[in-house]
Amino acid sequence: MKSRRDFIKTTAAAGAGFTLLPSGTLFDKDKESKLRLGFIGVGLRGQNHLELALRRNDVEVVAMCDIQQVMMDSAMELVNKSGKTKPQLIMDGPLGYKRLLENKDIDAVIIATPWEWHTAMCLDAMNAKKYVGCEVITGMTIEECWELVHTSERTGMPLMMLENVCYRRDVMAVLSMVRQNIFGELIHLQGGYQHDLLEVKFNNGTQPYGGGVEFGEKGFSEARWRTQHSVNRNGDLYPTHGIGPLAMMTNINRGNRFTQLVSYATKSRGLHNYIVKKGGENHPNAKVNFKLGDIVTTMIHTASEETILLQHDTNLPRPYSIGFRVQGTNGIWMDVNKSIYIDGQSKEAHRWEEAQAWFDRYDHPLWKKYGSDAAGAGHGGMDWFVLNAFIESAKRKIAPPQDVYDAVTWSAITPLSESSIQMGGASVEFPDFTKGQWMYRKNNFAIGDDY
Amino acid sequence: MKSRRDFIKTTAAAGAGFTLLPSGTLFDKDKESKLRLGFIGVGLRGQNHLELALRRNDVEVVAMCDIQQVMMDSAMELVNKSGKTKPQLIMDGPLGYKRLLENKDIDAVIIATPWEWHTAMCLDAMNAKKYVGCEVITGMTIEECWELVHTSERTGMPLMMLENVCYRRDVMAVLSMVRQNIFGELIHLQGGYQHDLLEVKFNNGTQPYGGGVEFGEKGFSEARWRTQHSVNRNGDLYPTHGIGPLAMMTNINRGNRFTQLVSYATKSRGLHNYIVKKGGENHPNAKVNFKLGDIVTTMIHTASEETILLQHDTNLPRPYSIGFRVQGTNGIWMDVNKSIYIDGQSKEAHRWEEAQAWFDRYDHPLWKKYGSDAAGAGHGGMDWFVLNAFIESAKRKIAPPQDVYDAVTWSAITPLSESSIQMGGASVEFPDFTKGQWMYRKNNFAIGDDY
Repeated sequence: MKSRRDFIKTTAAAGAGFTLLPSGTLFDKDKESKLRLGFIGVGLRGQNHLELALRRNDVEVVAMCDIQQVMMDSAMELVNKSGKTKPQLIMDGPLGYKRLLENKDIDAVIIATPWEWHTAMCLDAMNAKKYVGCEVITGMTIEECWELVHTSERTGMPLMMLENVCYRRDVMAVLSMVRQNIFGELIHLQGGYQHDLLEVKFNNGTQPYGGGVEFGEKGFSEARWRTQHSVNRNGDLYPTHGIGPLAMMTNINRGNRFTQLVSYATKSRGLHNYIVKKGGENHPNAKVNFKLGDIVTTMIHTASEETILLQHDTNLPRPYSIGFRVQGTNGIWMDVNKSIYIDGQSKEAHRWEEAQAWFDRYDHPLWKKYGSDAAGAGHGGMDWFVLNAFIESAKRKIAPPQDVYDAVTWSAITPLSESSIQMGGASVEFPDFTKGQWMYRKNNFAIGDDY
Repeated sequence: MKSRRDFIKTTAAAGAGFTLLPSGTLFDKDKESKLRLGFIGVGLRGQNHLELALRRNDVEVVAMCDIQQVMMDSAMELVNKSGKTKPQLIMDGPLGYKRLLENKDIDAVIIATPWEWHTAMCLDAMNAKKYVGCEVITGMTIEECWELVHTSERTGMPLMMLENVCYRRDVMAVLSMVRQNIFGELIHLQGGYQHDLLEVKFNNGTQPYGGGVEFGEKGFSEARWRTQHSVNRNGDLYPTHGIGPLAMMTNINRGNRFTQLVSYATKSRGLHNYIVKKGGENHPNAKVNFKLGDIVTTMIHTASEETILLQHDTNLPRPYSIGFRVQGTNGIWMDVNKSIYIDGQSKEAHRWEEAQAWFDRYDHPLWKKYGSDAAGAGHGGMDWFVLNAFIESAKRKIAPPQDVYDAVTWSAITPLSESSIQMGGASVEFPDFTKGQWMYRKNNFAIGDDY
């Protein structure tokens, strides 16, 4: 086996530079047809993936671990409903996942745990020679990001961050339009996470959404851990849903890269106000100081001189919106008004058109082929596609379409935005996790209708 | 007459801190009823104001100057059509305006000339003891901004920048909603100037819009001068339409102020592409290097810890949009999808509502009273209101509702954004043109139905 650097050089020259791994080195050939999966974390998000995995004939769920009985029970209900064989169940505290990784019958793992556990679990999984699919946010510090890259390179094991919005039907149609040059040369893009999470960050300890203003040990599901990040951190805490699709459109890590970033944060009002409104000013949580500004705006500059704007807005009452905008020399798509304008093609000069007709016309081959399989899967079907991409890549023993460089590049926005804000709005340089290979790698994300 | 500082202290204490001028010191009392106006620049924009001024019985157009016969002819046509007395006409080259300022019968002047002439003309007019209304962009450098402030303070003569978007009907309804706390405490705002100016920046030298790719000496109207700024400068060249209304909503210079700013610019493609597309690659202008990035994004931080986002986007084919967003702890307005969401008041949780019903309900008293007078005036009626505010303030000998501090604070965004971009995306401090008085001044913009 060649060294990684040799391999990248060879494959880049051959025009297939996205592949990290020499094929055929991952698993035994005779096990190719069925992927043996382990689940680290079967909370509500893990259960989404589990349910989709159980639907498939090419996946065997070999083991599951969690730290909460209630989650394990719900997960087992899904297994029972599916009629599949009962997996190995591991409940052995926060480090129980290490026992799961010792299971030699597991080819690949899905990690769906609190953010602060992702890096440790990914590292351990790669070191245990598992193909890794991890929920979003892989690396909470730049050092963690580098460690993930180095470990993936050293072990030869891929890490795919399960960023699902790259597979949203309208987003993929726009990706097709970008690739067919409908927008011309890209100039400016926007995205973000504008989602009122008040009933996610707080609940009554028994239901996942709302009903109370508890979090941490007294909370349930995400409120148990996610809210604490709003207490301690000020930055764009959740950048990947916005940046993933935009990074693929602008060929980040594949001919382009992020060069620098700057973030500004507003005051913090929403979380405190909500506690007082729903729990009264004497509720103990009314004394908590939340560090997270209600809205964090981030500008990114790229090597190709595009700008990308990200908005993180999770503490205020508002309608949901990723807030996509894709603008080039020929035209523009905006998400919030569901509209597109293409110079010379739109019916009236300078007038928005309904975007849907464009989406229908440029529907991505993957959605044409698998749209009915994806129907009923989470988040409008995109959960089906992201899991499918992971499973198909793992079965074929190739690098996933969203690889470790993407995982850490997208996740690194959070610590970089925290630094920028802490330094009073200084622009900070973006690390090049590919170590120069971004100049040679090709964009093979969703180029066909395979996965 | 008290010194300015004493005066401001007194009036601030009396809750009328917006007034720069002791009343009754500007003009002779017996001329109060009719304002005697001079026009410096009667190009297309000057003619808009002229036409509205000629409609009024409380205005006498005393003199007009310009450097182009064609513009003077058009202006005289408007005068003739109105049946009003022929004003003094001055055509004496670029400095002819100084002769106009010598006319002692002129109380106030309207300046509508290229940006680079605004500061010199405003300074000369204030020194000549004229009440000054100047078209947008007053001060192209920070030094010019300061000189305008110092000269206004020294001479006691007000400068109103004629920023019309502050008077847009929907914008004023939102201002009313802000003041009635419908949005709660403001958190984040957006605006800008997203307007395809390709046919403004280039024309055939005889028509104002399009028909060719000429600019500078071979261009007509704005193409004669405005385009050159895109050759030489990279920044948010036109911030006032977006920031004016947002500044009034956030009480800038009246309890709040801009503290810092950062801008990122994209590559420059649109202007060159347009020249090649319409004029061919052998047209001499195809060799021009335009410094202005196609999209310039600026983030501003305020003393009250709001963030304001501005977008300057004038080189690409796109639908027009100022791109307003006003978001507080209770809800949000967005311009591009014409929608509002107010927590607990909107019909469905987390669902946008058509904004129009809200605009109708919170229609500003000024629009209720003068909507029919404004009908037919430029830019949907808002031109009527901004001129009316200038004329009524001048007649009453009081500080205008948008004063010199506003004029330079809004205009200063351009040179600050140029600096920020030149320094590679550094945040730059925002000057406090009020010298601390922002802490005490009150927001009296459009508080009643007078002007």
